[in-house]
Amino acid sequence: MSTKSGPVVVLSGGVGGAKLALGLYRILPEQSLSVVVNTGDDFNHYGLRICPDLDTALYTLADLSDKEQGWGRANESWQCLQTLAELGGDNWFRLGDRDLALHLLRTQHLSEGATLTQCIHRLAANMGIGAQILPMSDQVVATELATDQGRLPFQEYFVRRQCQPVVESMHYTGAEVAQPSDEVLSALAQPDLRAIVIAPSNPYLSVAPILSIVGMKAALQRASAPVIAVSPVIGGAAVKGPTAKIMQELNLQPSALTVANFYKDLIDGFVLDTTDESLLSQLPVAGLSTNTLMTSLPDRERLAEEVLGFADQLR
Amino acid sequence: MSTKSGPVVVLSGGVGGAKLALGLYRILPEQSLSVVVNTGDDFNHYGLRICPDLDTALYTLADLSDKEQGWGRANESWQCLQTLAELGGDNWFRLGDRDLALHLLRTQHLSEGATLTQCIHRLAANMGIGAQILPMSDQVVATELATDQGRLPFQEYFVRRQCQPVVESMHYTGAEVAQPSDEVLSALAQPDLRAIVIAPSNPYLSVAPILSIVGMKAALQRASAPVIAVSPVIGGAAVKGPTAKIMQELNLQPSALTVANFYKDLIDGFVLDTTDESLLSQLPVAGLSTNTLMTSLPDRERLAEEVLGFADQLR
Repeated sequence: MSTKSGPVVVLSGGVGGAKLALGLYRILPEQSLSVVVNTGDDFNHYGLRICPDLDTALYTLADLSDKEQGWGRANESWQCLQTLAELGGDNWFRLGDRDLALHLLRTQHLSEGATLTQCIHRLAANMGIGAQILPMSDQVVATELATDQGRLPFQEYFVRRQCQPVVESMHYTGAEVAQPSDEVLSALAQPDLRAIVIAPSNPYLSVAPILSIVGMKAALQRASAPVIAVSPVIGGAAVKGPTAKIMQELNLQPSALTVANFYKDLIDGFVLDTTDESLLSQLPVAGLSTNTLMTSLPDRERLAEEVLGFADQLR
Repeated sequence: MSTKSGPVVVLSGGVGGAKLALGLYRILPEQSLSVVVNTGDDFNHYGLRICPDLDTALYTLADLSDKEQGWGRANESWQCLQTLAELGGDNWFRLGDRDLALHLLRTQHLSEGATLTQCIHRLAANMGIGAQILPMSDQVVATELATDQGRLPFQEYFVRRQCQPVVESMHYTGAEVAQPSDEVLSALAQPDLRAIVIAPSNPYLSVAPILSIVGMKAALQRASAPVIAVSPVIGGAAVKGPTAKIMQELNLQPSALTVANFYKDLIDGFVLDTTDESLLSQLPVAGLSTNTLMTSLPDRERLAEEVLGFADQLR
């Protein structure tokens, strides 16, 4: 266990980010972790408000996630989705029967006037989660991609077209007016904050929307704690998802170094995989090389410990 | 088989009405039946638009209904509902996993601007139903009950409180401005219409909302075909549901005769059970006594034949 104490904030997208968030959650005391989650992937489907990254954080921290497929709930069934297909409905977005309960409750809470933050707080409490899971904003931000097949909403690109279109640019619609919630700003302003961790999520699709909202970068820069980013790119490839593919399409070198440079104005330290340790000397900030591939639960906890230890050194 | 021909319209509430609608559907040629369905029970739940009587009509005519419990879909599963309860949500309205698909599709269609009529038409077509299932109106009408426990929305009274409150009066909010859809008016105005049947549904909770909307009674009176009502009360008791209980609470004699008098300005004939044949001479209109209890599929078909035969005699 680390010797220092104090609360920790992690900025996270979906599956990759939630892995490190879980590691941090398990090694920290109860109520010491705030997970600030991307909401740029959120969308409306069948009249329901769906927040994939928030739900991944909820399921992961509540130990309800499907560990095989990496998204959704364990022990899921698909009766509703099958019936939707039989009735001629869209079934490209995989709505599980148990997962639907979360979307129904959220849609109801929101329609009753709750903020997304209040809504997720209630769900997390009902799931017994001893961490704050915070939407980056209560205002709507929608990630859209300009591609060779036109401008696509995130889920259309990511799920329906399985990241096949060639990406030309990303747009975070609404980010120009959206602000971090009070809860996010309070989490970042904690005087005893130990570290802010940018999880190994996709920098362009998952973290950039968080950074793009009004006042978020300033709040990170004001924070008393060191900011550490963990590379989602190992040996020029992404552990999961289209990070490397998008980097190529944007004419960026798919490398941990590119990610470090993307974050360089915000971070105090950068964690990359031992595979990439030759890049350490080229980093724009302090670097740590370690095994960043989180296959097992002990991997998650060990990486969390190392990231916090690295942050403690940088104070 | 009856010798006469021509299309038939049936006015129906939920389960009891759908039984006779199914009998009519099975004995008539394809596309000869229009089922005008009560929408006063419709409500919003978890952000979804739920139309219980329309869904009962869809499931019954598509042969997808759960014949044991009398409502909902056969082979239903309850993963979503169980999860809702685990997450602290309401589970008094029994949303099945497969049933949810219908609510999701409807909610989506409506949010895209479809009328409820268009939406049900599409669902019925996808379910392979060769009859018109028509919402009574595309405007919202909400049945509410003044009770000893206050004014209650229909589902609150019917499902959540299981019809236990004492009913003082019924209100069909919105009926003062709602109109029958063009499709309903066209169905009733067919020059070769053979019969209009008021199904053995609850007169106060299921049929009265249909009759209460602007222009519905006039359209029934204008129609060229005889109007026949079938009693939902047999020997002073309702086959199903709170009909007799409500009649007592409203200080009405729970009897087929009371039902006949309720409809007397609209109907040309009244069908009651052989149990009540002593009441035939007191009816305000022509009467037919037969076995009206529809236990089996042949019962439904036989009663449908007899009702149409009776209508043919009254032309």
